[in-house]
Amino acid sequence: MFLVDRSSSVPLADQIEARLRELVERGRLAAGVKLPSIRQLAAQLGVSANTVVTAYDRLVAAALIESRGTAGFVVCESAATLPDEALLEAGEEQDPVWLAQQANEQRAGVLPASSGALPASWLVDAIPATLLARALARSPGGMASRCPPQGLPALRERIALVMRGQGIAVDASRVLTTSGGTQALDLIVRSFVQPGDTVLVEDPGYFLLFGRLRQSGVRMLPITRRPDGLDLDQLEAACREHRPRLLFVQSVLHNPTGWGSSAANLHRVLLLAERHNVLVVEDDVHGHFMPGPASRLAQLSGLSGVIYCSSFNKALSPALRVGYLAAEPALLKPLLREKICATLTGAALNEYVLLEVLAAGRLRKHLDRLQQKLATARAVAARQLSAAGIVLEQPGEGGLFMWGRVPAEVDIDLLVKDAFRNAILLARGATFTADGGADPHLRFNVVFSQNPRLADYLAPRLAAVSEAQTTLARVAAQGLK
Amino acid sequence: MFLVDRSSSVPLADQIEARLRELVERGRLAAGVKLPSIRQLAAQLGVSANTVVTAYDRLVAAALIESRGTAGFVVCESAATLPDEALLEAGEEQDPVWLAQQANEQRAGVLPASSGALPASWLVDAIPATLLARALARSPGGMASRCPPQGLPALRERIALVMRGQGIAVDASRVLTTSGGTQALDLIVRSFVQPGDTVLVEDPGYFLLFGRLRQSGVRMLPITRRPDGLDLDQLEAACREHRPRLLFVQSVLHNPTGWGSSAANLHRVLLLAERHNVLVVEDDVHGHFMPGPASRLAQLSGLSGVIYCSSFNKALSPALRVGYLAAEPALLKPLLREKICATLTGAALNEYVLLEVLAAGRLRKHLDRLQQKLATARAVAARQLSAAGIVLEQPGEGGLFMWGRVPAEVDIDLLVKDAFRNAILLARGATFTADGGADPHLRFNVVFSQNPRLADYLAPRLAAVSEAQTTLARVAAQGLK
Repeated sequence: MFLVDRSSSVPLADQIEARLRELVERGRLAAGVKLPSIRQLAAQLGVSANTVVTAYDRLVAAALIESRGTAGFVVCESAATLPDEALLEAGEEQDPVWLAQQANEQRAGVLPASSGALPASWLVDAIPATLLARALARSPGGMASRCPPQGLPALRERIALVMRGQGIAVDASRVLTTSGGTQALDLIVRSFVQPGDTVLVEDPGYFLLFGRLRQSGVRMLPITRRPDGLDLDQLEAACREHRPRLLFVQSVLHNPTGWGSSAANLHRVLLLAERHNVLVVEDDVHGHFMPGPASRLAQLSGLSGVIYCSSFNKALSPALRVGYLAAEPALLKPLLREKICATLTGAALNEYVLLEVLAAGRLRKHLDRLQQKLATARAVAARQLSAAGIVLEQPGEGGLFMWGRVPAEVDIDLLVKDAFRNAILLARGATFTADGGADPHLRFNVVFSQNPRLADYLAPRLAAVSEAQTTLARVAAQGLK
Repeated sequence: MFLVDRSSSVPLADQIEARLRELVERGRLAAGVKLPSIRQLAAQLGVSANTVVTAYDRLVAAALIESRGTAGFVVCESAATLPDEALLEAGEEQDPVWLAQQANEQRAGVLPASSGALPASWLVDAIPATLLARALARSPGGMASRCPPQGLPALRERIALVMRGQGIAVDASRVLTTSGGTQALDLIVRSFVQPGDTVLVEDPGYFLLFGRLRQSGVRMLPITRRPDGLDLDQLEAACREHRPRLLFVQSVLHNPTGWGSSAANLHRVLLLAERHNVLVVEDDVHGHFMPGPASRLAQLSGLSGVIYCSSFNKALSPALRVGYLAAEPALLKPLLREKICATLTGAALNEYVLLEVLAAGRLRKHLDRLQQKLATARAVAARQLSAAGIVLEQPGEGGLFMWGRVPAEVDIDLLVKDAFRNAILLARGATFTADGGADPHLRFNVVFSQNPRLADYLAPRLAAVSEAQTTLARVAAQGLK
């Protein structure tokens, strides 16, 4: 692998650390690769086990490698590739597109504390390789297969079954597969929005949706999202005054807060939407993380006047990128036409693989396990963040996110920038406000926020600010004397 | 309901599963009937709740029963849902979207004589199943892997290598992967066209591009496509008078004619585009079918002012749906942003599989074989169609298509409709004209057009018309006497 230089004044542990770091960062040691055991490497290099332990410990602290217990050390899930040259300009951090890109390109050493995704290690066993071969063998044409643009009929049957399990009355003819939840939203915007239309969105809400709407020249009206659903007074006033065309809602495990919605709130939302002729889009891409039953607009409405979208990206396999939407036929038809214009059809390989996963009955057990692990992670992250000085808002029902407020004295923009310099990626509240206005929150991913590096980073900084504030108050008080 | 046999060697869960399956399949438990709760059935049969859970899980997986959340388990509606045709209304045949849908849903018994694709049998061995497992094993996170939005760096390296093999100077930083060639065109339109812009297209040309442009509210100006390239006088006049924003060209194996372009023609196109500040899009999705070298705009221009797009759908695997485009950085950046807005990123599974195919050096041999088979098919189809009364225009250089004229006396719309009733799918020339105007041609797929059913169908009908014409001429001549 490499040698150490005993004549150098650089300590051996530092040398080992530097060489390994270089190998990882240059992609010579790819993510997931197992490192030699401590004893092996010590023997190879002729150094003490303690020296290797020191080097490994530092690399673990830098999130370049991770310990897998008895299985040893592996290179962290992080593409370890160099950034895509030229595409990122200085000052674009926190730009929604940039954030989306970061979320998909986890880099060596960077802790994606606000990530919108699970770490790869949580999903790596969800779909075994043998299942791929089986899926291909069952498809009519193997790698020469094609999908109908609406999606494989057998897969749509299975998706309808999953949805009925969530209490939504639907059959396969109302389901359309998409390239992730992103394409579902994109097709909806393409199909039902004209420049100049007014569209209602949750505030805070999903930043890529805001970006997509802004781009299409619509007027975006924010409706405050509360822990039990949309603010109904604001919603009613907006419907009355602005004749909106569409309303986008995440009823369950809302991004970025993790909040749900009460059945009563959803019922009122539907009444208002019907009265004012507003088409409702329910974005449920986090829905598979929901432990136990939940109220959804698609369920209450029987899909009348509601387009429902979800995805298997988050909870099953980001490598497949299969999402889906469901709607009544009159709404589904223009969506299908737009899908054909945008990407013609889905990839048959991905749809046959997903069909095989669902038909093998693997989904339920997998989701149960994920939901339990998320609950544990949530408890740990909540304890650490609270201790570090973050005020967690009304806790969500589960899923990936917590919505944490920083003390009023903290300049959140500076904090986020400083964290980035310290290899911690945080998404500030302003990213999730419809108008980009200041907001004192951070979105936390419960899994990555368990990493003590985050609390260790935040605690002294938040304490320092609060100390300075106390001093300032004392000085001010003394001045008053 | 039933009992279990404790003395049997068959596991209890298997027994329960088998009995319930039998009851459902024989209709004893009708669709919609609620099953006993897990606890109830466990108590009735004197087995553990886990045993019942196992049996129920398997029946859910088999789509025989379904979970309704807290409402328990019910017997599924039988798989007899309505077919997709609900989405197709009468009179939509020959609508571009409908044609695209047909091409992707090859139906039993229908001869897709105008298809834009190879038959599955020609591609089924291109990517063996073992390669999938290998690709997955080499990916860092298996089915938990993600792609950077621009595409896997290693795959982009390989694509750049393929392009350099075609004489195009490019490196990986200028390549962006897409969901097929369709998404490449869609991203270009999204990035560079505003409603009201003028855009130049080849006439005849690719119908889904026309549909996409019409939808985005641009003014589409057709430039006549000749066997050696665009009509340069028309192009120059259009550039002078209409200040177009974009020009779409298929230089090689043009769809629907199969024609190429001379280097001299392409050189003049580039000069005009540069002088009039027109951005050029070269659509090369059929390029992998080209036997031997060919002149391309991307090559002559060194990608300056030219966006190049292509795909592995047509010649390698439609099941993957991986396409790509290449452009200089200033043009690539907005395209990447649009990709993120439209689908966030590509599917890692597909990109790792394609990477493995290219890295294993399978592409070259596969394409050589395809090109030879296409040449043979072309010769056979040309002979049969000519004998049947179709006048084949200037033969193309290879690829999928021939452009055949029907005698002037034939009502081509009636012919196409009658052919459809006879289970032969033909696409008429008007589909490929930018304004949908009448055109006496049909597009023929050389592979499917070898099928004698096509010539057998056409010959008597074209002969009858020509006979009637002769009779008419004789009558007219007699009348003159």
